[in-house]
Amino acid sequence: MNHYERSALNFFAASPLDRMTLKRRDAAWLAEQLTAATTRFVPVWQTKNLFDAQDMSRALLLAPGADHLWLAAAEPILLGVHEGITYFGVDVAEGADHLASLQTLGKFEDLRLVGTRLDAKTGGLLALARAMTYWHQRHRFCGDCGSPTQSADGGFVRRCTNPACGKQHFPRTDPAIIVQVSAGDKCLLARQAVWPPGRYSVLAGFVEPGESVEDAVIREVLEETNIRVTNIHYYASQPWPFPASLMLGYTAEATNVDLHYTDDELEHARWISRRELKEALQAETIKLPPPLSISHRLIESWFDTGECGRLRDWL
Amino acid sequence: MNHYERSALNFFAASPLDRMTLKRRDAAWLAEQLTAATTRFVPVWQTKNLFDAQDMSRALLLAPGADHLWLAAAEPILLGVHEGITYFGVDVAEGADHLASLQTLGKFEDLRLVGTRLDAKTGGLLALARAMTYWHQRHRFCGDCGSPTQSADGGFVRRCTNPACGKQHFPRTDPAIIVQVSAGDKCLLARQAVWPPGRYSVLAGFVEPGESVEDAVIREVLEETNIRVTNIHYYASQPWPFPASLMLGYTAEATNVDLHYTDDELEHARWISRRELKEALQAETIKLPPPLSISHRLIESWFDTGECGRLRDWL
Repeated sequence: MNHYERSALNFFAASPLDRMTLKRRDAAWLAEQLTAATTRFVPVWQTKNLFDAQDMSRALLLAPGADHLWLAAAEPILLGVHEGITYFGVDVAEGADHLASLQTLGKFEDLRLVGTRLDAKTGGLLALARAMTYWHQRHRFCGDCGSPTQSADGGFVRRCTNPACGKQHFPRTDPAIIVQVSAGDKCLLARQAVWPPGRYSVLAGFVEPGESVEDAVIREVLEETNIRVTNIHYYASQPWPFPASLMLGYTAEATNVDLHYTDDELEHARWISRRELKEALQAETIKLPPPLSISHRLIESWFDTGECGRLRDWL
Repeated sequence: MNHYERSALNFFAASPLDRMTLKRRDAAWLAEQLTAATTRFVPVWQTKNLFDAQDMSRALLLAPGADHLWLAAAEPILLGVHEGITYFGVDVAEGADHLASLQTLGKFEDLRLVGTRLDAKTGGLLALARAMTYWHQRHRFCGDCGSPTQSADGGFVRRCTNPACGKQHFPRTDPAIIVQVSAGDKCLLARQAVWPPGRYSVLAGFVEPGESVEDAVIREVLEETNIRVTNIHYYASQPWPFPASLMLGYTAEATNVDLHYTDDELEHARWISRRELKEALQAETIKLPPPLSISHRLIESWFDTGECGRLRDWL
């Protein structure tokens, strides 16, 4: 399997949406789309997406028109076009008049909790809306001079309104590594104190300025568990807009097995064999991250190469 | 070769520096390091590093002490420790008294122009100093509320000084794809109008929110040249702090060959065989990006698998 095919299996990836990047600066085209009957808006409030409260697998999209005159005024973000429908993301301001009516219409919920109930296309669309509205919220002022910024280029730029500055700011995505570390037939799993009880996962952390992704893999594993890794291979990637990460998945092999949590990030770390993991999952003493995450896929990919069958056949 | 080994060949990667991430919040340790005789400061002015004007392979580092009392006051950034020496990055403010004396001491120059003349350790150190000072410059104000921010945690956080906000901001790194596209025995090379005459390279572009890296590979190649790619494989990564990128290198195969520049980014794009490239390089009608870049390595890696020998043996 090539790396595109592997990444495409990850939720939120391989969206069929055409981002129409070349139309972002076409003001006339954008204005036309904002009021077209076929256009749909993806509302986000406090980083949550809007769903049908009776059927959370149904995302609620809004049509332009008399009911939603606020939409075109709310710095809408061009998400893209798919099958003749133009999609915009829109942030529902705190305290806005229309917030209450939207809350009657449906339920705002964290995309991670709904994720796999959605079809993949909708998942990608909602993830993009969430990521972009979060970025706008956090860049309302210019980091260079402190003046207000305003949305431009279909929402893919924020421009400083101070004519003496005028700096452009672009959407931010934070690359992060996530790595499945093996030692013989065992896999390294760990948990953070803030996670739900029993939840274990593979290690992850942000790539820092001035390091390659593979440098970050080595540094993170060493910092968090005192394990040195080798034989590092890229696995796949996944957009993870919670709030703004890009997960870069790897596999690696440990050269030592003595775990130390030198970091206050981890509450516990352990080596576990496939058989031990299977038993712990069946006894519900260990829970894995949700299947929509690349962390789950990395664990599954390791598990499935062993003698305990395929994880998805019995989990 | 695993992906760590391949990325480690890229300049600026695989630095032996220990970033000492767990010491960033240790104020007493940091204060001690700032005045220790073995400590060295890496000055950056307008994103340029300081070199010995007579020997640009020698980076000039500053020692704490009477000559440089301004150093400890200038929001120094903990870069890390190597062989008993603690390194801090420091931004030389425009118009500062000490700027003129530093300009007498040596020459500030763009790291890309000096790059491979440095040993790899120094290259990584200077790249990190450059990346971090640039990030500080561009985040002096809080994007959430517009108030001034101040450096914290050894320079790896900027915190909003407005008590009602207090948001923390972390160093920013922009993931970007760079991809060597093949069609049969030919490689896709292109140039931007702003590049030096004759310079050609592989295609590159930023990963956007809500897409996997591989999604970005497909989108960028399609947008820029109308070529659809398949069989996408990750190659290696490279930190590229000019000003803040993380290059994610890929190879891919084209499924069509009809080039259209649908984007105003490209001045020209072409398919080229190894033999044609060799002739053009020898005639100097085509120039490649500098050997310190992953773009050069991707082209070299493609070239070397053919019948024209190894690029580095005659370039």
